[in-house]
Amino acid sequence: MSEKSIHPIDAALAFQVIDGQLTGRTSAAYMNMIGPFGGITAAAMIKAILIHPDVLGEPISLTVNFAAAVQDAPFVLDAKAMRTGRSTQHWSVTMLQNDEIVTTATAVFATRRKTWETTDLAFPQLPDDMQPIDQSMMPPWANNYRFRFAPGENPLVARGADTSESILMIRDEPPRPLDFASLTAISDIFPPRVFVRRGKFVPAGTVSITIYYHTNGDRLKQYGAGELIGHARANRFYNRYFDQSAELWTPEGDLVVTTTQIVYFKE
Amino acid sequence: MSEKSIHPIDAALAFQVIDGQLTGRTSAAYMNMIGPFGGITAAAMIKAILIHPDVLGEPISLTVNFAAAVQDAPFVLDAKAMRTGRSTQHWSVTMLQNDEIVTTATAVFATRRKTWETTDLAFPQLPDDMQPIDQSMMPPWANNYRFRFAPGENPLVARGADTSESILMIRDEPPRPLDFASLTAISDIFPPRVFVRRGKFVPAGTVSITIYYHTNGDRLKQYGAGELIGHARANRFYNRYFDQSAELWTPEGDLVVTTTQIVYFKE
Repeated sequence: MSEKSIHPIDAALAFQVIDGQLTGRTSAAYMNMIGPFGGITAAAMIKAILIHPDVLGEPISLTVNFAAAVQDAPFVLDAKAMRTGRSTQHWSVTMLQNDEIVTTATAVFATRRKTWETTDLAFPQLPDDMQPIDQSMMPPWANNYRFRFAPGENPLVARGADTSESILMIRDEPPRPLDFASLTAISDIFPPRVFVRRGKFVPAGTVSITIYYHTNGDRLKQYGAGELIGHARANRFYNRYFDQSAELWTPEGDLVVTTTQIVYFKE
Repeated sequence: MSEKSIHPIDAALAFQVIDGQLTGRTSAAYMNMIGPFGGITAAAMIKAILIHPDVLGEPISLTVNFAAAVQDAPFVLDAKAMRTGRSTQHWSVTMLQNDEIVTTATAVFATRRKTWETTDLAFPQLPDDMQPIDQSMMPPWANNYRFRFAPGENPLVARGADTSESILMIRDEPPRPLDFASLTAISDIFPPRVFVRRGKFVPAGTVSITIYYHTNGDRLKQYGAGELIGHARANRFYNRYFDQSAELWTPEGDLVVTTTQIVYFKE
């Protein structure tokens, strides 16, 4: 990437105000099998808040509901501060295409203040020899990331398994310093656990994702463009829906994101 | 409870349409230290959808954001179907007091269809001898539940611990057949993990909760008024916020709910 080129995620999240409406366009670089990668849609929802003139503090939580298929076309983002307190702010965001709602979100922003801190969740066991994989068979969005897996393992290719668990390393490709928008997108890079668990591809798509941020902007800057460790597993598959939970860690052991999602699946 | 008396939760969730607005009132029976128990507010949000004439299917997920303190006073619930598909429906709900938003929520409802099913999460190790506790020191809402804990353990009373994990058994008191509203309330009965972890009470309050439902109405009916097993732990405490995740199981091993919440804490 030359110094002058723009990173694909910055191009995908470059919005303009047109007729008083925050307007964007789906990006070919972040397309999935059908429609855009959910992570880039989630990133668009949080970015609409991050750049809002009334924003207070930094992201604490985000829930994005994928209400309808996002068409490969322009979209409008409407972010509203629903309630602002002394140190917290509650947001509602909708993404519209042709005046119809395709995505909804709520978010909590807040000013952080130094408190006691600890991490109760255990740092995952990371294999020594995490290796890049051949990503050529993956959908377009995945080319904006570099994945590394344990030797022989590739949770992006369906395989039989008694477990739905995956561990991976991930960063933007080309490398790019983390910010809340890119971190939001990375929170959704774990493929549907039903592929892993059943060892085959079945129709599947996230219907709602919730992301909790355990960092602040300064700390994110310190992480720079480094890799994150991703760890994911499913909990329960039942009558068309399953949930999966995941975490993003720095290699130094900072738990940066905890996230859960509920996913539609067929068969 | 006589056959004719109404269960406290049914009284708390008895809404009326006044001037075209779905109107309720906070219930003394479900008060917490300050304001109402979050679980009863979450139950009100889902009930506003459950009783809506346009509702499609059953709850898949719910996210409730506690935007401001709910006053001990009447409230208005405004539930809007944001997008309805063939088998899914996305909702947005607000709770207002004096025309100000105090709570927001989004929910996904869907028609279930029989699919392959499995539970990847391990059933928790349940001590043999779960015992009721003296609940007299607990806030009013807790009297509508019967808690059982391992002998000597009481996660509702602050204690020092190296872990933020709790296991408990819970049911409505008096016993009442489960439905989606009561299950939603029970999803929030786990006290803030910071009490458990630090062994003392500090200011703390949920700012956002997400609940995934892994059951349907028929199955809930089969569970009747039986106890559920609750299992909770925190992940990370950082600069005023921590997240905790929890599950509700039937004693027979059905994983009924997975839930996460992000909680404000001080100090």
